[in-house]
Amino acid sequence: MSDRRLEGSVRIVGSGLLGASIGLGLTARGVDVIVDDASPSNARLAIDYGAGRAPRDDDAPALIVVCVPPDVTAQVVGAELAAHPDALVTDVASVKLAPLRELESAGADLSRYLGTHPMAGREIGGPAAARADLFLGRPWVLAGHDAISYRRAAAIEDMILDLGAVPVEMTVAQHDASVALVSHAPQVVSSLLAARLTDGDNAALALAGQGVRDVTRVAGSDPGLWLQILSANAVPVAAILRALRDDLDVVVDALERIGDERPDGARRAIVDALAAGNAGVARLPGKHGKDARYASLVVLIDDRPGQLARLFAEIGDLGVNLEDLRLEHSPGAPIGIVEVSVLPEAVAALERDLIERGWRIAG
Amino acid sequence: MSDRRLEGSVRIVGSGLLGASIGLGLTARGVDVIVDDASPSNARLAIDYGAGRAPRDDDAPALIVVCVPPDVTAQVVGAELAAHPDALVTDVASVKLAPLRELESAGADLSRYLGTHPMAGREIGGPAAARADLFLGRPWVLAGHDAISYRRAAAIEDMILDLGAVPVEMTVAQHDASVALVSHAPQVVSSLLAARLTDGDNAALALAGQGVRDVTRVAGSDPGLWLQILSANAVPVAAILRALRDDLDVVVDALERIGDERPDGARRAIVDALAAGNAGVARLPGKHGKDARYASLVVLIDDRPGQLARLFAEIGDLGVNLEDLRLEHSPGAPIGIVEVSVLPEAVAALERDLIERGWRIAG
Repeated sequence: MSDRRLEGSVRIVGSGLLGASIGLGLTARGVDVIVDDASPSNARLAIDYGAGRAPRDDDAPALIVVCVPPDVTAQVVGAELAAHPDALVTDVASVKLAPLRELESAGADLSRYLGTHPMAGREIGGPAAARADLFLGRPWVLAGHDAISYRRAAAIEDMILDLGAVPVEMTVAQHDASVALVSHAPQVVSSLLAARLTDGDNAALALAGQGVRDVTRVAGSDPGLWLQILSANAVPVAAILRALRDDLDVVVDALERIGDERPDGARRAIVDALAAGNAGVARLPGKHGKDARYASLVVLIDDRPGQLARLFAEIGDLGVNLEDLRLEHSPGAPIGIVEVSVLPEAVAALERDLIERGWRIAG
Repeated sequence: MSDRRLEGSVRIVGSGLLGASIGLGLTARGVDVIVDDASPSNARLAIDYGAGRAPRDDDAPALIVVCVPPDVTAQVVGAELAAHPDALVTDVASVKLAPLRELESAGADLSRYLGTHPMAGREIGGPAAARADLFLGRPWVLAGHDAISYRRAAAIEDMILDLGAVPVEMTVAQHDASVALVSHAPQVVSSLLAARLTDGDNAALALAGQGVRDVTRVAGSDPGLWLQILSANAVPVAAILRALRDDLDVVVDALERIGDERPDGARRAIVDALAAGNAGVARLPGKHGKDARYASLVVLIDDRPGQLARLFAEIGDLGVNLEDLRLEHSPGAPIGIVEVSVLPEAVAALERDLIERGWRIAG
């Protein structure tokens, strides 16, 4: 506790996954956390989970964290700014410009507001899914604007550090453009591709492998929440999707011409699009924030209880840490294919040792 | 060996990943396998790995399996049909209509040819990556056409069964439309989205989470090979991408109008697109070919050697088999989040037992 940065009480408004997780994390650090929610039963549940205490009339929070859905964020932030004239107020909505503009036009005191966005979350929501360590090591954007300095908002950065997250300073516009690229546009693209699967017959879908499963995984997300996010960040998302649509037009045109006598440039257009994809995916940072890719081994295991256990036990014995792993789907197969990714310097010894121990390594 | 179905010698032309894996699998079943390749060093390497033996002048193969790149498949199949007038010939190219048409117009004896496509493979290629059990439990399409009956092609189905794969009968057109939907179109979409990442600055890419990583994973594939696949299946792929582009136009238009005074129908259009994505992804069959989704648990582990081992060891002790698992990327985090998927009937007991053993289960 001694190394805690935050001082004073923190009031959390909205006790869903993020609000309750912030409450759990700060309470664990010894912060006095007040939990409030438009839904009293949600608030009570979060308090039962240890996210904080119920509000009192004499509460004088130094920091207020608004954790409500994007489309009501500005309204709740405005109300908190008005109700607590001495408090610094922030929010955790996944879009930042729209709420700021709404607060501006409502004449809110923006010198006490700085929005943030923790790059953490889970498919499961609600206080019951909350975890004190949800934010450990995750980037947490402080979305700056002209009416307040980062120094004035130091308590917000203290909260982020107390929760074990990594503060990242961006302007609201930089933030919204960034998440449009790495989160919002990918969601739309995944959904649009998944929608095509509704046309396929069962025989076609039975041929589905890992690739289409990966591309469409996030298409399972909640349309209602994503409507709020997309409509609040519509301009940057639309710009990315328009550019993607232009590239798609080029590829579709090339595919339609490639059967022609002289499909001039069609092959070139398709290869260029695929190569640009190679270049783009290579830019995604690795788990440890470096661009370094890991070295990976493909290990064949029997699809029986305990086989993965034995594999990982032996990898553990060898003192090697797994950076990533993937278990391949193989419909009805009695075997599994596990791709384990480790730091490049560890892979040679690991492969040798696993083979010595009788594992089947592919490639 | 006694339950082997194939009779006679099998000649494999092309000793890359698929050819060498077929050779290894059939050799393991006691079949006399002949390995040939335009590249003598490739052939020698595959033979060194145990994929079969070198050709002899007196070879009289009952079945010939052509395992060469899509753009030369028809030419090699035609040559094999001509050189071995008594042999049944097949291939394993990932497109089926184009090679058939090419053979037709070349006047080949199609009464001895039936193309196939094993739904198996790996990102790594070459004979060194070959595995006798590459096809275990995987669907393997027999792409039927009018000039030959499945009965006449019984030896091909015998080979598929001897390799432990699951024969699936489709027409060439059905096959090409199916893989266009579950493999070729997803590849293009993943590449086009990944290409957008080349526009992002490093700060934006540093915010990337698991979602965008999944959507863009296959964008790392080889442009040269995919040009061959896409150009050989251009018509069905273009049809799917055109439909996707039309949906994309609707979403882009909606996003561009949603800031208007009266964005009539814009919200509805976005929710409809996202909901269609929900419906599509829900149609993907589970690992065991059922539509059943698995129940999953999210377990928090320390990012240290041996932690995953301990988790999977205990899951194994509990006699529970993992259907799927996912290790979440968390840049710089000292913890890892493991989502384990198990059969629904097993999840309640597993959660209880893991909590009893002191694991942190989220949600």
